[in-house]
Amino acid sequence: MPRLSLKEKIVVSAVETLHRKGFNGCSVQDITEAAGVPKGSFYNHFQSKEDLAVAALERYWHKVQASLLMLGDQDGPGMERLARYFRHLNDLTRQNAYETGCLVGNMAAEMSDQSASIRERLAGLLADWSGAIEACVQAAQADGSMRRDIDSRSIAACLLNAWEGAIMRAKVDRSHRPLEDFDRVVLASLRA
Amino acid sequence: MPRLSLKEKIVVSAVETLHRKGFNGCSVQDITEAAGVPKGSFYNHFQSKEDLAVAALERYWHKVQASLLMLGDQDGPGMERLARYFRHLNDLTRQNAYETGCLVGNMAAEMSDQSASIRERLAGLLADWSGAIEACVQAAQADGSMRRDIDSRSIAACLLNAWEGAIMRAKVDRSHRPLEDFDRVVLASLRA
Repeated sequence: MPRLSLKEKIVVSAVETLHRKGFNGCSVQDITEAAGVPKGSFYNHFQSKEDLAVAALERYWHKVQASLLMLGDQDGPGMERLARYFRHLNDLTRQNAYETGCLVGNMAAEMSDQSASIRERLAGLLADWSGAIEACVQAAQADGSMRRDIDSRSIAACLLNAWEGAIMRAKVDRSHRPLEDFDRVVLASLRA
Repeated sequence: MPRLSLKEKIVVSAVETLHRKGFNGCSVQDITEAAGVPKGSFYNHFQSKEDLAVAALERYWHKVQASLLMLGDQDGPGMERLARYFRHLNDLTRQNAYETGCLVGNMAAEMSDQSASIRERLAGLLADWSGAIEACVQAAQADGSMRRDIDSRSIAACLLNAWEGAIMRAKVDRSHRPLEDFDRVVLASLRA
């Protein structure tokens, strides 16, 4: 792993700490301590804790984007690629014992009314995430593996939102069942 | 409205303040100030802020339960009762300009990893909410208005989780569209 700059160390620590404790559940000092950097160095790199949260979301989003490459993989019908993609996300959650959920969903629930800059970044990122899913939905509708009587934009947005709801419930129930229900109901009822 | 006891005033204020600011985004003092009661009176009635959050969830849940009566109304096929029920919830969200979301979902995202007592109350409450929806799903499957190839428990849980995901996205996007997508995709694809 390449040596991280001090700024990158703070962002990596922020992703982990914000994901585990939420925005208002941790302090800048919690984040700099976990990063092993002096608290005073924080304001050399960030204007505010909100500014850092936006940078942390950006870094988390890069990981999400990497997983989205699976959707572009041409192996099998579009519907199966979508099912594999969500099962991959679910496996990551299972490894984590259903704790922490999705940083995007957590920040959306906690911070949308508290910070315009965080809300706007979340809106952009969720639009991009939905867009990547929509491209695969269109492929699935074209190859005949997904029903065509509902528009691809609505299906894509709904898949992502329903999955965010399922991972939140998995966190409450400490159970895989909400993620299985998502597969059994939302995905299954979209198959052609 | 009957005169509220000091304890009830604190709980009413907690529902409103926790819903608007989140658990870690407000202090006990914010809640007692908004209630117009002395901060010192708080610990006569509650052992901790967590204890108050559980009482606030209980009060919020009573409002949810009142809305659930719509599902038992025998007017029309089960599928239409479900669609009306979720549209009613969506209208409440619209009146609120898509701010605040659902207190249950917000607490689930923010507090499931932070407080066992809050997480356990949320799990029980979501189980009861799913159960009430399931009774209507069973009626819809029996009267032929909903597809029968997926089990009623999974459908009910998934409806609730997907709606929670939709209301979270509505809060981020400040838009009704995620709630329309829920109707157009999840509800529509379950119709018989």
